[in-house]
Amino acid sequence: MNQVAEQDPLLETDFIKEMVKQMRAIDSYGTYDGWPADRILAPYVVTKEQRRAIPVIGDPDEIMLSRIKAFYNAISSLIEKECGLMAVPSVNITHEGFGRALITVGKLVVMDRTLRDVHRYGYESLSKMKDEGDKLLSVALEIIGKYPEVAGL
Amino acid sequence: MNQVAEQDPLLETDFIKEMVKQMRAIDSYGTYDGWPADRILAPYVVTKEQRRAIPVIGDPDEIMLSRIKAFYNAISSLIEKECGLMAVPSVNITHEGFGRALITVGKLVVMDRTLRDVHRYGYESLSKMKDEGDKLLSVALEIIGKYPEVAGL
Repeated sequence: MNQVAEQDPLLETDFIKEMVKQMRAIDSYGTYDGWPADRILAPYVVTKEQRRAIPVIGDPDEIMLSRIKAFYNAISSLIEKECGLMAVPSVNITHEGFGRALITVGKLVVMDRTLRDVHRYGYESLSKMKDEGDKLLSVALEIIGKYPEVAGL
Repeated sequence: MNQVAEQDPLLETDFIKEMVKQMRAIDSYGTYDGWPADRILAPYVVTKEQRRAIPVIGDPDEIMLSRIKAFYNAISSLIEKECGLMAVPSVNITHEGFGRALITVGKLVVMDRTLRDVHRYGYESLSKMKDEGDKLLSVALEIIGKYPEVAGL
């Protein structure tokens, strides 16, 4: 009912646009058609209280895993746009909810993170999520700038 | 009944010894206790005829996946022994039996392979398997030698 409300400038950033694109890509049944960006990305927002309430036992579900992958796909895609070289994400999560997310460009590892308690994966707000994405992106671009030869292999 | 038979020199190589160690590491129930190396590694030998007979439908089973991981763990361990830096394997296989195996040393990707039809994973002989391992090892060490700074990050 608030459709004429002013658009949040956050939703117009490259990062959020790319995230929405990645989420739509995995939305095989078109559930998100016509949904606004903040509704599509809502599952990424998990407050501290919500986080505490999520049990970390059992296998993390497939939807959660695809959400985590969408995040690293978005980062890879943004790296690619910036440096013009292919960035390949690789997310490995064990049944217990631990894992590793890697992004490689050529022979260079431009991002390498250990994942813990993925059951509770999420960010306090979309803005915090974007900060995280921007940080990973800038670190990745910095290392590519430092070792362009390895990234070009 | 042939226990006095001459030991095959292949079974004395670092690669095969490391493979046996990796296989014993995943043998939680001690099934392999007392088994000779060639018996422990027998599942890795798949002839062309056997390979053709294996269907590539359905999910590759967990035992197969752990076998593939043991192979790349062995390569990583050998890389580590040679260069003194930690080598971290990362094997990602989708439900359809396709995937990617990576080994990183520092920020350097020292091995990157696309895996196909993992249902049919295996080698024509242990000697062929060792050749494959040696090849991966030498390529990895070559790239580490070329970019020691990135490998040391």
